[in-house]
Order: sequence, then structure tokens, then C-alpha cells
Amino acid sequence: MAAAAPLPPSTPAPEPSMNLLEPTLDIPIFSRVRLATSADVPHIHKLIHQMAVFEKLTHLFSATESSLTATLFNSPPFTSFTVLLLEVSPNPFTNASASSATAFPPIDRAVHLDLPLIDPERETFFSDKANDITVAGFVLFFPELPTFLAKPGFYVEDLFVRNCYRRKGFGRMLLSAVAKQAVKMGYGRVDWVVLDWNINAIKFYEEMGAEIHDGWRICRLTSEALQAYGD
Amino acid sequence: MAAAAPLPPSTPAPEPSMNLLEPTLDIPIFSRVRLATSADVPHIHKLIHQMAVFEKLTHLFSATESSLTATLFNSPPFTSFTVLLLEVSPNPFTNASASSATAFPPIDRAVHLDLPLIDPERETFFSDKANDITVAGFVLFFPELPTFLAKPGFYVEDLFVRNCYRRKGFGRMLLSAVAKQAVKMGYGRVDWVVLDWNINAIKFYEEMGAEIHDGWRICRLTSEALQAYGD
Repeated sequence: MAAAAPLPPSTPAPEPSMNLLEPTLDIPIFSRVRLATSADVPHIHKLIHQMAVFEKLTHLFSATESSLTATLFNSPPFTSFTVLLLEVSPNPFTNASASSATAFPPIDRAVHLDLPLIDPERETFFSDKANDITVAGFVLFFPELPTFLAKPGFYVEDLFVRNCYRRKGFGRMLLSAVAKQAVKMGYGRVDWVVLDWNINAIKFYEEMGAEIHDGWRICRLTSEALQAYGD
Repeated sequence: MAAAAPLPPSTPAPEPSMNLLEPTLDIPIFSRVRLATSADVPHIHKLIHQMAVFEKLTHLFSATESSLTATLFNSPPFTSFTVLLLEVSPNPFTNASASSATAFPPIDRAVHLDLPLIDPERETFFSDKANDITVAGFVLFFPELPTFLAKPGFYVEDLFVRNCYRRKGFGRMLLSAVAKQAVKMGYGRVDWVVLDWNINAIKFYEEMGAEIHDGWRICRLTSEALQAYGD
């Protein structure tokens, strides 16, 4: 909830112990960050639920596919709530469909692994089974207004990479895509929040150039306390 | 900057010492919260600057009237950056203009003061000199998306009341107006941030029903660190 960032730092995993009889493998995995569309809602919903499980906040989880459909994709990309999706495939990506590629040209990246990657939920997260493309994560963000600057920024509400795809630079790839888009649009800031005990995530964000601001506390009106203002 | 909330608690001011020869005065002051329009930009700009002075953050202040005009009022009210303005007058308010009143019926309130209120900047902040109406504060907010709820909320970026109008319940009036609008739209949350040393503001927000969340830290990419992502 709030800006969740269950991101480990992007330090490389320890070297696997070498077996002289078996050379280190070089397994390519192709990844792409693209603009999500309403067709992606079932996968987005499952990712948000996984994030709630990771954060032990399933008691707060009430999103449904239809509530997401009603909330997302009502405005042109980047003008309101926007989702970028991370996809992976054993094969190089071909061009995305023309419409979403115009608003946001997909960002491709190839990663080379030493060990085969087992995705136990591959079938569940296929976005294009024929081309062996699987959804691996997402970032959700929306415009904010840092008033003193009087130019917008982006607030990153969620950043999530599925468990088996972590520690491979995909979190960085998603967050960088938002930062790059902010610069492209002339925006002045990208903000998000992190839990104060999540030292690994804080270290990772600092490496990405973020400042961590200690002095602010979140105030929240919700549930009955908010409803009372409707009377 | 960020959600500024230089708001004192709404506890009543201490009783002025009684003078038996001079009965306590009962001076009415009429107030109204209404939707701001592009015509209000000069006043909004001055209020934001006063907020920067109050927060000792003028070095971060680069907003101009034209940058505000370019950023605000590009979308229908409540769908993006939205400003509600607090006005005061010695006279009761008549109806606001029809167009903004449709999107947001103005909220009126009369306050009774024991002592005359001296506004040294009354001339500067006249929004309607003929009717003796003065701008006294504002709240700036925009939609956010608490993903687990999958229904929007509002994020309050700024809440500001000019110095001579503080401790009269106007901050509460502005923030309540946002909460009321959130409920009206079926939104699930209103969020803002407060500086951790601002005990008076925290107490005031708790009295208004807000929960203060201690565990989150703001992460911010800005200036050169952000620009680096554009390369």
C-alpha cells in the first residue's frame, strides 16, 4: 500500500560455486517495459494482490478487476494513473502495437543469467503465450504538483517485481523508465515512499540518486473517519 | 513544498482580559470556500510565496504566475490539480458565479470574533474590492490512487491560511472541504504529510480524524539526479 517498494538492492547475486566439469551458462532473458492497456487488468490485479501478500497487507486489499478497470485507463497516458508493465521472454521482442508505442516507445533490455530461471507462475502470467511473453512486474504512478516548482512531477505509488525476477535490475529498469518519462515531459520531480526498516530498498534508491527525507510523516483520513465528512 | 501544513491547532485563543467598562465585542467575519479559477492565479502565487517564506524554503521557490497558469486549470475540477480558495468579508456572501458553483457549491461560514481583525495585506489580497472580499488562504490537492482500494483518493499538497486569519478554524474548513468532496465522489482516502516536529499541526490533524503513519520515508529524485535519467 502507499508506494510499496519491496525491492532488493541491485547488487549482483553471489557467484554460484564453480563446477569445473560444467561451464557457467549464459542464458539470455529478454525484457521490455511497455505502457499497460485495459487488456492487462487481470495481470495487474494479480500483481497488486501479490504485493499485498508480500507486504502482509491483504486485509486492506479490496481491489477487483472491475474496480481497476473503472479507475485506470480513463485518461491519456501520464495525465492520470498510469501503469508500465515489465514483460520477459526467452526470445527477443518484436515491435509493440503502434498505438501504445506512440505514447511510450517500449524500453528493451537483455539480461544474461548464469543459471536457468524457473518461473513457477509462468502460465498464469502469460501476456502473449504464442510468443512466450510473461508479465514479471509493474510500476504505477500519477502526476503530482510540487507547488514551489510549479511544474508537475510523478508520484510512484507501486513498484513491484515478481519474486523469481528480483535481483536482476528490473526494479531499476521500471523506476528509470518513470524518471526518463518525467524528464522527457519537463517534469521536476519523482517521489515515492519507502518503509523505514527496508534498508536494502533505501540503499538501492540512494544508489539511483534519490534523497531520503526523514522529517515528514504521512497523515491519512480514511474509512469511517473520512466518511464522517460526508454528513 | 510537499504538503505544507503550517496550521496551528484549532483550540480557542485565550480569553482576552475583560474590561468591565468595555463589553466584549461580537464582530462577525464571513468566510467562503470556493473553487479557484485562472483569474485567481495572482493571489494563489502570492499565497504560495508566503508559504515558502513561512517554511524557510524560498530558495526552492521558482513558481511564477505564468508557470502556475500553465499547470493549473487544464482539466475539469478534481480530475487533476485543484485549488479551493478561502475568502473572507465583513459582509455575508452572495451566490458565486454559476459555472464554478455547479462543480463545487461554495461552503459558507460565519465566525464571531471578540476583537477586530487587522489584515495588513487586505488591499493586496482583494478578490472583489467592490464587495470587500479578501483572499485568506487556499488548499491545493489532486487525485491519488491507493492501489489496494482501487478507488482514488486525494493528496493534499498545500494547505495555507494567511497569518492574521489563523486560529479561527479556517484550516479545518479548507481540509474538511476536501474530505467532503472525496466522500461525495466515492473516494477512499485523503492523504497529506506533516513535518515531524510540528506537534501542533499533528495534534490538529489527529483531532480531525487523521492517522499519522510513522514508518514511511519520502524518496525524491529531483534536479541533476533526475535529469541524468533523460540521457
